[in-house]
Amino acid sequence: MSSSSTLPKYVKIVEVGPRDGLQNEKEFVPIDVKVDLINQLSNAGFSNIEAASFVSPKWIPQMAGSDKVMAAISRKPGTIYSALTPNMKGYESALAAKVDEIVIFSAASEAFAQKNINCSITESVERFAPVAKAAKQDGIRIRGSISCSFGCPYEGSVEAAQVSEVVKRMMELGCDEIDIADTIGVGTPGQIAAVFEGLFAFAPKEQFSGHFHDTYGQALANIYAAMQVGVSIFHSSIAGLGGCPYAKGATGNVATEDVLYMLKGLGIETGIDFDTAVKIGEYITKVTGKTNASRVGRAIAAKK
Amino acid sequence: MSSSSTLPKYVKIVEVGPRDGLQNEKEFVPIDVKVDLINQLSNAGFSNIEAASFVSPKWIPQMAGSDKVMAAISRKPGTIYSALTPNMKGYESALAAKVDEIVIFSAASEAFAQKNINCSITESVERFAPVAKAAKQDGIRIRGSISCSFGCPYEGSVEAAQVSEVVKRMMELGCDEIDIADTIGVGTPGQIAAVFEGLFAFAPKEQFSGHFHDTYGQALANIYAAMQVGVSIFHSSIAGLGGCPYAKGATGNVATEDVLYMLKGLGIETGIDFDTAVKIGEYITKVTGKTNASRVGRAIAAKK
Repeated sequence: MSSSSTLPKYVKIVEVGPRDGLQNEKEFVPIDVKVDLINQLSNAGFSNIEAASFVSPKWIPQMAGSDKVMAAISRKPGTIYSALTPNMKGYESALAAKVDEIVIFSAASEAFAQKNINCSITESVERFAPVAKAAKQDGIRIRGSISCSFGCPYEGSVEAAQVSEVVKRMMELGCDEIDIADTIGVGTPGQIAAVFEGLFAFAPKEQFSGHFHDTYGQALANIYAAMQVGVSIFHSSIAGLGGCPYAKGATGNVATEDVLYMLKGLGIETGIDFDTAVKIGEYITKVTGKTNASRVGRAIAAKK
Repeated sequence: MSSSSTLPKYVKIVEVGPRDGLQNEKEFVPIDVKVDLINQLSNAGFSNIEAASFVSPKWIPQMAGSDKVMAAISRKPGTIYSALTPNMKGYESALAAKVDEIVIFSAASEAFAQKNINCSITESVERFAPVAKAAKQDGIRIRGSISCSFGCPYEGSVEAAQVSEVVKRMMELGCDEIDIADTIGVGTPGQIAAVFEGLFAFAPKEQFSGHFHDTYGQALANIYAAMQVGVSIFHSSIAGLGGCPYAKGATGNVATEDVLYMLKGLGIETGIDFDTAVKIGEYITKVTGKTNASRVGRAIAAKK
């Protein structure tokens, strides 16, 4: 069997470093550094960048000034700049800041929804109905993110049927794209393939992305397995920014450089310049004083 | 497509930490620690442990006392204890030390053979002919290891045909098992699958193992791809011991715990107790003062 024959020709990378990554770093990263990072990413060819979160700074101080970030970046035509919008207030701010895509979110685990968003899964999706309706009217793309689709820090295992259930609700809200997220990085390739195959029984493949954390080192194998069943959108974080909020000191988002290295080796197009991505990883780790969590980034730095 | 249907039911892990791993660590690890490590591994269910190297301590001081290690370990019945034998002198020592399997080696890259073993690929294999002949007569298993099968630190790319060529010579020497090694960890899943598929056109699948370094983070995806084309033996190093000799500070051998985690998730048997393996990784990193290079090891430690 030649497994590579089933792989996509093009993969869209959603770079989540500026939001999901930096939000989970302890220290606040200055607005101008965020702007610089986002501009470097768009210039390197990243076509979708999670840039901001319009959430109360009381809740998430790291995301304060998201409006300033959005106002200061140099918009590259065709690039989608996404922002999290937890409620109508956040949505209004995102609209004013001219984001291209809003991100709404729920979880596949009841325990996680309760602990993280203080309501049931059903309630969490219902609360987003007015946000989604407004975005549709305003012609803004909607992305739905489903946390803990492969395991939960409180509940343990999560059934594929639970994921499908939340996906259906997200589709009813009119989501253009839906992220199936392994928030704690516990999934393994067979499980990943099975969950996506379950979704593709009732929904189009192009609508789904894989958001995999590398906490247990599984992310690249999971991406490979997901591509084999038809997933062609993946989230990653430059230099692996972010860490794991559920196990301090462990790895979080899969590093963009590691994903790009694999895709390049597989001959899969991304539109992103690999060498520039590695340099951006060096830049952001230097300026923030973080350790580069990308193995590719570290290997290339070590050879110099 | 359900990719997991083609995966092996059982995978043999060759634990290379005590030799390949510790050899590439800067500090000498005391004999009694090595003995303790090897005994812990055999008790955890590892059925094949690369335990020693009968090479001159002038060349590789970290392997001094391999005879003492072999004499002091508690042999577990059925467990294969392997040792590197670079020449007849090394073979005689290995025989005296009652190793179960000798390891002979060459490379798929001429430049690497010249720099690493000071001769051509052809010469390197020919030099092992008397060693292999003696091992056959003495009823000792022979493993052949082929470095740089997917890329070379000096030559860059390596063609699949070069690997096949060296494999054929190793088979002529009577090797029972042949390691296809990604010594610098540059391979990606499509390349891995293609090289093994090339070999399986003329040689039985059960005879080959994948030895993958995680320098660019690709090792687990490569193992997954290799399993899909029929490879069922893999090398790994507990706690990722070893690092990368060609890029100091970068990752070397794939961590055993990360491999076991993936195999467990895929429902593939190994005969190894996962929790015990994680504890052995904690033990050896604590006693040697190393950072645990296993993501699984770090994630589990971070949760405590």
